[in-house]
Amino acid sequence: MDPTDLIAQKRDGRPLDAGALRALVDAYTRNDVPDYQMSAFLMATVLNGLNEDETAALTDAMTRSGDVLDLSDLPGAHVDKHSTGGVGDKVSLLLAPIVASCGATVPMISGRGLGHTGGTLDKLESIPGLRTDLSVEQYKRQLAEIGLVMIGQTDEIAPADRKLYALRDVTATVESIPLIASSIMSKKLAEGIDALVLDVKCGRGAFMKTEPRARRLAETLVSIGERAGTPTVALLTRMDVPLGRTAGNWPEVAESVRGLQDDTEGLDDVMDVTLALAGEMLALAGAADTPEDGRRQAADAVRSGAAFEKFLEMVEAQGGAPSTLETPGAREDAAVRTVRAPGTTADAGFVADLDALAVGRTALALGAGRREMADDVDPLAGIVLHKKPGERVAPGQPLADLHAQSSGNSRFDEAERRLLDAFSFAGEEPARPPLLMDRYADGAWQAE
Amino acid sequence: MDPTDLIAQKRDGRPLDAGALRALVDAYTRNDVPDYQMSAFLMATVLNGLNEDETAALTDAMTRSGDVLDLSDLPGAHVDKHSTGGVGDKVSLLLAPIVASCGATVPMISGRGLGHTGGTLDKLESIPGLRTDLSVEQYKRQLAEIGLVMIGQTDEIAPADRKLYALRDVTATVESIPLIASSIMSKKLAEGIDALVLDVKCGRGAFMKTEPRARRLAETLVSIGERAGTPTVALLTRMDVPLGRTAGNWPEVAESVRGLQDDTEGLDDVMDVTLALAGEMLALAGAADTPEDGRRQAADAVRSGAAFEKFLEMVEAQGGAPSTLETPGAREDAAVRTVRAPGTTADAGFVADLDALAVGRTALALGAGRREMADDVDPLAGIVLHKKPGERVAPGQPLADLHAQSSGNSRFDEAERRLLDAFSFAGEEPARPPLLMDRYADGAWQAE
Repeated sequence: MDPTDLIAQKRDGRPLDAGALRALVDAYTRNDVPDYQMSAFLMATVLNGLNEDETAALTDAMTRSGDVLDLSDLPGAHVDKHSTGGVGDKVSLLLAPIVASCGATVPMISGRGLGHTGGTLDKLESIPGLRTDLSVEQYKRQLAEIGLVMIGQTDEIAPADRKLYALRDVTATVESIPLIASSIMSKKLAEGIDALVLDVKCGRGAFMKTEPRARRLAETLVSIGERAGTPTVALLTRMDVPLGRTAGNWPEVAESVRGLQDDTEGLDDVMDVTLALAGEMLALAGAADTPEDGRRQAADAVRSGAAFEKFLEMVEAQGGAPSTLETPGAREDAAVRTVRAPGTTADAGFVADLDALAVGRTALALGAGRREMADDVDPLAGIVLHKKPGERVAPGQPLADLHAQSSGNSRFDEAERRLLDAFSFAGEEPARPPLLMDRYADGAWQAE
Repeated sequence: MDPTDLIAQKRDGRPLDAGALRALVDAYTRNDVPDYQMSAFLMATVLNGLNEDETAALTDAMTRSGDVLDLSDLPGAHVDKHSTGGVGDKVSLLLAPIVASCGATVPMISGRGLGHTGGTLDKLESIPGLRTDLSVEQYKRQLAEIGLVMIGQTDEIAPADRKLYALRDVTATVESIPLIASSIMSKKLAEGIDALVLDVKCGRGAFMKTEPRARRLAETLVSIGERAGTPTVALLTRMDVPLGRTAGNWPEVAESVRGLQDDTEGLDDVMDVTLALAGEMLALAGAADTPEDGRRQAADAVRSGAAFEKFLEMVEAQGGAPSTLETPGAREDAAVRTVRAPGTTADAGFVADLDALAVGRTALALGAGRREMADDVDPLAGIVLHKKPGERVAPGQPLADLHAQSSGNSRFDEAERRLLDAFSFAGEEPARPPLLMDRYADGAWQAE
């Protein structure tokens, strides 16, 4: 294998076969192909694309670049979910215990990633004591015992993806649907799952800003899953406004606990997406006859308290203190500033819009997320929204609270300015388009 | 300057301004931008191109990445020539002394490069004792004294080009007209020249295989020169058949000496290209009124012996032994094998064609060129052709001699097979299209 020949092939728009892609990825993982060759290949891929065969083969090579977990000695169907990420997207924290409490096994491996708020891992780790760095043995034991585990990516899972992700970040080669899809799917397929549900988000607060691109990503992700023999379904969900009423690490955990405790006032949007995904997962796992049936089971598990019980079991198994979750709210050690509606709202009366991207940037300014991989996140940082689009507002009313570690309160002035810019107001109640936009499975979109 | 932003700009097809390109090249030269970012930028450039402004700005940044020689204290016009390279292209060895003997100053800096035969430097260095690694001071002194110097690129000349060239070679980013043109022109413009003539070769033995690409390269090169304030003219010349009757290092020196001694039998093609280029150089230098007048002066300088005299002056000034040039031919220490016409030529009678690329590969197999930059070349290796297209041939007649250092004679079997494949034979005398295809100057092609 001569890497320069393979780069030239992709440069000239000629497709690569599976053997060539496998050889390239393997050599890169072993550091036998240097970064400067891989980045040229990645740029050629961004500009000339990969066809369906190539995308599946690249993903397979990345999956097999490290350990592929074998969970076949554990009973039941193993099903996971991946979201392409949005502002306030705490769905995994609710979804995983709900699905596990309904009888499916959920072996969730999450990343930290770059973003406005931390990843699922960072959110979980804001629970005092909770560890996400379990060994493979601990991971399998916990799955066998309680059917649910949420850990971080280990060095053994898809090491090619870790190297490629870091390289893409600094070479402007992130923006490629086949590369995005292969990165997501290689990690998930290495988990040893039997089925996968995807939440592909679309809108100004999502990675995919436009509906055509979001649809293409969904189709590519499902195609990779199906070609790997892993039944996969994707939901297309809107991400123009933050999901729920919090964005940040501990604030999202607190809100998730509230949802799991069936205290869902103001959380319609979070619960709607969560239950839809849960229904799909339970149907794929064979624990429900249809997604609709699965959705009903999931709602029952919230109402009965079984889902929250499962969450506490997981927290305890991973070293967290369940007592911190009993009265979810602002932690005592957090600094808080309340942002109030400006005088101009007197002529308006309604929150017209709330820009998810601007809210995300506010959370980042508060220290909730990472600009670079080496950054630490502030576990307490985040935003608690008191007003969302469609709700009535008057001057001086609280729009939101900003949270941070006490050392982070110097960031409040910038964050307040940013957050106020994210809101707009109107005299009429705005329309609210549905969150669930479409569903892709078996090669077809439901709504088309 | 954030290199990732500049890569993204080029990836998305948005043009970069001169300041951005300058900052990128400067940072890369200082090793502040790593190879993996530059290779992604290069691939985006290969696929999305550079416009005329960007190409000129990139070249300018590369030129200024090191020393730009100032020859303004030396009298006369300084004019140089660059060829894009072909098989048997020894034109520089004849041209530089011819032009210098007619009163222009020729400060020629050449590369070694990769190729079937060595570069002009390797050819010169096959003259025993001759040195091409002069200091800038020696370079300027020799120019002042004899008006002619031929040296190698120093570390101070266009260091950005050296780094970029090495990176392009291993990342499949060579094939880009703006990148090829900026590499060529940055080195030439750093020489401190007043004018430049280009020999852009076109055909199966050239880097540009097709006429449209060769024309585009010529236009790009001339545009860069004109924008840099350096009058530039390009000739488009055919390179399907080897130029002259030799390909290799010493064999080409020997042939050049024969040409300079006005012993030009069988060298019509070499002399035609050389005199055309000489005419252009003398006109640009103001030593002739027109290219045609310059051509006549050049021919006179060969006939009078002035050109050969100038060549010997240069060889002596650079430490070479002029005595080795008195009877040019095979060196005593060379191993030689004669390749004879096969029996099948009995039905033919003429050499129909001789594939320059195949002859080049034969020379490479003999050790005359480099596969990698670190390779040594065999100064004696090469091919001396006894038959060229259009000449009569009968079975058993010598077609060519293969030359190599005596340790290289193990390469003769492979080289003989390759060379025989390069020849084809026919019953009719083949047509011979003219070598000089067109001329580009002042934004227009002469023949169009």
